[in-house]
Amino acid sequence: MAGSELNECPAALQRLETLPMSDDQLSQFRRSIDNIDAAFIHMLAERFRITQAVGHYKAELGMPPADPIREQEQIKRLRKLAEEAGLDPEFSEKFLRFVIDEVIRHHERIADGPS
Amino acid sequence: MAGSELNECPAALQRLETLPMSDDQLSQFRRSIDNIDAAFIHMLAERFRITQAVGHYKAELGMPPADPIREQEQIKRLRKLAEEAGLDPEFSEKFLRFVIDEVIRHHERIADGPS
Repeated sequence: MAGSELNECPAALQRLETLPMSDDQLSQFRRSIDNIDAAFIHMLAERFRITQAVGHYKAELGMPPADPIREQEQIKRLRKLAEEAGLDPEFSEKFLRFVIDEVIRHHERIADGPS
Repeated sequence: MAGSELNECPAALQRLETLPMSDDQLSQFRRSIDNIDAAFIHMLAERFRITQAVGHYKAELGMPPADPIREQEQIKRLRKLAEEAGLDPEFSEKFLRFVIDEVIRHHERIADGPS
């Protein structure tokens, strides 16, 4: 049934709207997820480029890799942003912790290695 | 010493360039990190909005929350993107696992709750 015919048949249209999404719709959603994930990878790469520079700075000045005060500020800010965006604030904190743990591993490697 | 004077004094310029980054530079890097993290939060919120819709679809059809074949495809693709972007492929896989684990928890909640 073509779209124009559906417009003339509200009952059929209503039935179609209550059907589960088709595999085509599922694959459309998955394409969106794949695009978002590709953006994540590139943003993570860029974030680690920046934190590598920060790591070299800290190593040069003998500063500790972790900075609990800065981390608390980041957590507070991201939890607020998460609430506004409709994301579970607990998850936003877990996510930041996950990324920061990797950053600290990088910083420790920089501090241990040749400057 | 003003910039124009520095240009006439290469030795001083060279010395400045080898100094560790200033606290101002550190705070500039942190502002970039904060911008990237804000983008992460909004993209995560959007990704979970999509996977929530997928979760309802799966629950309606009685499909299992996890899809190992799809996950293997995602991992393979993201590892390749990570290599191209200069990100540790192991970390890209850990990251995807971290996000998917949360998605599966959401799907299980949808499957257990009222449809």
